Amino acid sequence: MKTVDLILTNAVVLTMDKEFHTYEPGAVAISGNSIAAVGIEADILKDYTASKKIDCDRKVLIPGLVNAHTHVPMTLLRGLADDLRLDVWLMGYMMPVEREFVSPGFVELGTKLACAEMIRSGVTCFADMYYFEDHVARATEESGVRGVCGQSVMKFPAPDAKSYEEGLALARDFIVKWKDNDLIVPAVAPHAPYTCTPEIMAASAALAVEFDVPLHMHLAETAGEVENIRKEHGIPVIPYVKKSNLLEAKVIAAHCVHIDEGEIRSLLHANAGIAHNPSSNMKLASGIAPVKRMLEQGVNVGIGTDGPASNNDLDMFEEMRLASFLAKVNSGDPTALPARTTLLMGTRLGAQALHVGHLTGSIEVGKRADFVLVDLSPLHNSPRFERDPQNLYAQIIYAAKSNDVSDVMINGKWVMQNHKLTTLNEEELLNEARDYARKIDSFLINREQSVLSKLIAIGGATEEESFEVQAKVSIPATEPVLAAINTNTEISITRTRHYRQYDTYMKFEDPAQGYVRYREDHSVNDSGEITGVRSRLTLVGQTREHPFKEDVLLSRSRYLAPATQSLRFYKEYFKPQKTFEIEKNRMRYLVTYKETEFFINVDNFTLPELGCFLEVKSRTWSQQDARKKARLVQDLIKALGASPKNLVSQDYFEMVEKTKK
Amino acid sequence: MKTVDLILTNAVVLTMDKEFHTYEPGAVAISGNSIAAVGIEADILKDYTASKKIDCDRKVLIPGLVNAHTHVPMTLLRGLADDLRLDVWLMGYMMPVEREFVSPGFVELGTKLACAEMIRSGVTCFADMYYFEDHVARATEESGVRGVCGQSVMKFPAPDAKSYEEGLALARDFIVKWKDNDLIVPAVAPHAPYTCTPEIMAASAALAVEFDVPLHMHLAETAGEVENIRKEHGIPVIPYVKKSNLLEAKVIAAHCVHIDEGEIRSLLHANAGIAHNPSSNMKLASGIAPVKRMLEQGVNVGIGTDGPASNNDLDMFEEMRLASFLAKVNSGDPTALPARTTLLMGTRLGAQALHVGHLTGSIEVGKRADFVLVDLSPLHNSPRFERDPQNLYAQIIYAAKSNDVSDVMINGKWVMQNHKLTTLNEEELLNEARDYARKIDSFLINREQSVLSKLIAIGGATEEESFEVQAKVSIPATEPVLAAINTNTEISITRTRHYRQYDTYMKFEDPAQGYVRYREDHSVNDSGEITGVRSRLTLVGQTREHPFKEDVLLSRSRYLAPATQSLRFYKEYFKPQKTFEIEKNRMRYLVTYKETEFFINVDNFTLPELGCFLEVKSRTWSQQDARKKARLVQDLIKALGASPKNLVSQDYFEMVEKTKK
Repeated sequence: MKTVDLILTNAVVLTMDKEFHTYEPGAVAISGNSIAAVGIEADILKDYTASKKIDCDRKVLIPGLVNAHTHVPMTLLRGLADDLRLDVWLMGYMMPVEREFVSPGFVELGTKLACAEMIRSGVTCFADMYYFEDHVARATEESGVRGVCGQSVMKFPAPDAKSYEEGLALARDFIVKWKDNDLIVPAVAPHAPYTCTPEIMAASAALAVEFDVPLHMHLAETAGEVENIRKEHGIPVIPYVKKSNLLEAKVIAAHCVHIDEGEIRSLLHANAGIAHNPSSNMKLASGIAPVKRMLEQGVNVGIGTDGPASNNDLDMFEEMRLASFLAKVNSGDPTALPARTTLLMGTRLGAQALHVGHLTGSIEVGKRADFVLVDLSPLHNSPRFERDPQNLYAQIIYAAKSNDVSDVMINGKWVMQNHKLTTLNEEELLNEARDYARKIDSFLINREQSVLSKLIAIGGATEEESFEVQAKVSIPATEPVLAAINTNTEISITRTRHYRQYDTYMKFEDPAQGYVRYREDHSVNDSGEITGVRSRLTLVGQTREHPFKEDVLLSRSRYLAPATQSLRFYKEYFKPQKTFEIEKNRMRYLVTYKETEFFINVDNFTLPELGCFLEVKSRTWSQQDARKKARLVQDLIKALGASPKNLVSQDYFEMVEKTKK
Repeated sequence: MKTVDLILTNAVVLTMDKEFHTYEPGAVAISGNSIAAVGIEADILKDYTASKKIDCDRKVLIPGLVNAHTHVPMTLLRGLADDLRLDVWLMGYMMPVEREFVSPGFVELGTKLACAEMIRSGVTCFADMYYFEDHVARATEESGVRGVCGQSVMKFPAPDAKSYEEGLALARDFIVKWKDNDLIVPAVAPHAPYTCTPEIMAASAALAVEFDVPLHMHLAETAGEVENIRKEHGIPVIPYVKKSNLLEAKVIAAHCVHIDEGEIRSLLHANAGIAHNPSSNMKLASGIAPVKRMLEQGVNVGIGTDGPASNNDLDMFEEMRLASFLAKVNSGDPTALPARTTLLMGTRLGAQALHVGHLTGSIEVGKRADFVLVDLSPLHNSPRFERDPQNLYAQIIYAAKSNDVSDVMINGKWVMQNHKLTTLNEEELLNEARDYARKIDSFLINREQSVLSKLIAIGGATEEESFEVQAKVSIPATEPVLAAINTNTEISITRTRHYRQYDTYMKFEDPAQGYVRYREDHSVNDSGEITGVRSRLTLVGQTREHPFKEDVLLSRSRYLAPATQSLRFYKEYFKPQKTFEIEKNRMRYLVTYKETEFFINVDNFTLPELGCFLEVKSRTWSQQDARKKARLVQDLIKALGASPKNLVSQDYFEMVEKTKK
């Protein structure tokens, strides 16, 4: 007779071990933080004794669920922005708000909220990737939850690191600090192939190998990511990251929506785990991961909720159910991912995918005491059929809800008993969360009021400080003017460019906001071939600073930003009241005329058919200089054979708007 | 100041009316079973007074959810069989169990269980299709729930009707009885195009038009259904049913997974409603309905859970969430089915799809008081952002759970208050359900023990009563024997057939069960073309009744059934321990020899290569007759030039099994 600390009796035990042993009535003996024995109740009570015994009232005892991929502090951003494209959602809302608000305090609060929610839905272990991960780990440990915590590293400035070198240093310190913790497994988390350079990936892999810790990374989440890497490097995502030795680490690969058979094999051979995130992949329309094939090949595939801002919860019961449903409809095979396989993914396979299979994921002797009691008595789980052992797994996956979880033990300690959390005060957490929500609401409301703030929020628009003197005249045809530029001896040409310009103007309800112009410049060479494409975003002010009497204008400054996103992104992000388009051929010259530098544009419209125009511009820094240049502009126009009588004082977009009315 | 019966105050009211009015703090005045007023609390309290006021504590008041397609009594079959193909699930488990158990008592209990579960998840109105619908309606009314109840009609014998004429008569009586009820809208429910004849559809449509009640039908659920109708009738499903005047009725079309643009337009023009069932369509791998296109065209699309045996619950919160997710990933557009649209489908559009939009589906003056209080205070709904009015819809669709529903009113009466049901006793219902589960378990366990019972369960296998005298000899080649049959003057040929036979034998752990043989006979004409295919299922006994001394066998009787399902179906259904295959060319003759009828088979194996055989058989009814025929068989074998020395006493499958060992 051995003495242990605690014996749980009268449970329906689903061990999820290799043979899928089940015991009814079953019992588990717990010693310290580990499982000392599991089996039929009578057998356990014959061999073990304990001062404390708990009758589980025939509830189902399953291994604690493993949430294989998430960003826990994002509980604080749940429901902030939904039903948007991934880029609009990420670049337009998540990242700007994160830049503004993410701090150690934010991260600790968000983590505790997440731990409370996860405990309530039976999660005992999760894999996280976020900023200030030291604080995520601290809050996780305080909550009594097991976490594989990944410190993010990326090429962009992050809330906790100005550069990736700083991020890598943070990750090293973090790993050193937590590597021997009982609950926390530290990890390094290079964010994604499109946010990391090969150097970052190589350094992260080396760090992970040095300390033998996991490396957590988003891989092949969207078709766009795969397409871009193929375009730039000629290979798919997994071979691409392999070149940076990434697969030498213990990889946790999140998503893997768009990978092929060869890539699945590469991940298998590298013993990488995959975190499948059905809700997130569906909600953001990223696609459907080939989970059935991954499992057939033998990869450890876990299930993750992804961050609560893209899900919008941390409910592993919903996630498991969805994993089954999605695999079935995607493969056209209703026998795909049967309930037992899916529960396996949510437990033992998930733990193996996170490289903590030796600690958790099944109810086996020697593993940590991480488990969950599920109450199948509520009506929505009724009736229970016992003919087929699969019935019980099906009840848990297809009928049970997270609220049926009544008790949760992690590392031998109860974190929830009879639906009451023992480590966290939900009321307090909710109050603090409410304060954050108020602040974030007003930050976004302020931003939404100004197009300029929105422009700055997504990518550091730069204000062009200079003023510009400019004049524009309509001309009957471009050829005589072009000939004059090339032959007039007073004009010396520094640079010539030929563009086809495609402009989209976005107009807002409030005219004081100005226009946002999205311009694509297609450079054309002498043979008429396109040699390059460049996109820019410009916030054009509505008002003119100072019209000179000669109808030469002094235009106000503009805000410029490189257009790194698609036109559709900007349309959805800025939500203009209306948009209109302009297309033209532009010959652009940088010239010197009477010792002064001018830009000359000779434009020929193709959409709408406004005709041809000559534009002469020069930068200026003083009123006096501007006045002098205004006179020179007049001279130059005449020198090019155009008539100052045909001066046009409107911007092109204003002319177009007029034609529409 | 008007006096009403009840005023609900301090709610966040989402009306889901045409303008999507929301009121916070809002109030609703209720008079009798209807809504007298809704608006900002202060305005309502200025105009209305009531002896009873209830403070909603800032919970969200939404219209009652509408479950647009289900089979409520199937709560009693939840979790009975999962992860199976639709045909195996339906023909192998659901239908046999239904044939055995479905009765008025079963149906009433199952309906009450379903009503309890639906009330708990905020459903106030549902569309049902089942047997004994009078009892479904009775239990629904007792539960205080609004139901559009459809009496099933089909060409097969049903638990409540031996013929479809009986089913139609039942439907007529049912409609007459319930047509003026306050909670129940009776309907006729021709089951599906593949279970109804054109006459049934025409008669059902006429009945629905006569009484102006809805017609509820499964349409275009699987690709197979569409394919078969196209093969037989040359048109898609919707045009096919239109030919029987079906679209003249107020149709509720369940599923519509596989319909094209033209069919969507047909349904729109007929003002048909569509019930979209994402869980069921995913779980059974039926496919993904083009919901985004249906909505764009303006069809009333509601959301249904389908029966709890194929879902496995009646949770409309899960179902709405899934509808959004599925439409997004299917269209590749994360802006598809935004939260507000999905809640609209779950409420007003759903009510319109069921042709009860004038009664329920939104919180508007004059409609019935059907609504639900949702408590967004639990942690998984936190925080709440208020910047964008869409945030609240997103919280309900993406974060809230059915358990957040605290109070439900239907037709002006509370059916749940503070999570307590007022019309149903859950404990009692659960006990009764447990009894049914036990009985169904033992019925299936008994059946599973005998392959014969399983065969009978799926399609009335017929026992061949006769015994057969038979002998088989190996021959070096088929040609000499074939020539002898055609030239021997003692043999007169009645019929000749040429088959290619493809047999799959399924063997079971218990040899006493015999073998199940699935045979495909491909008839071949003189030019070698296949002119027909016939499939049969045979349960072959293991033992021989009586071997004669001449090695002529008297074989035991066999059970035969037409193989209406695919080979894959039978493999999954019978779960054999192993299977093996035989392919051969067979020339089959019915001949008269010495005034006695014989079948002669001349077989040439192609898989495995067993060689050629001559088989001679005759039916027999008495020992004496058998002995006489055994001698004649011997004579005939010799007459055909084969050697009786090469007599083979084994069945082909036994020879094949031997070669495998």
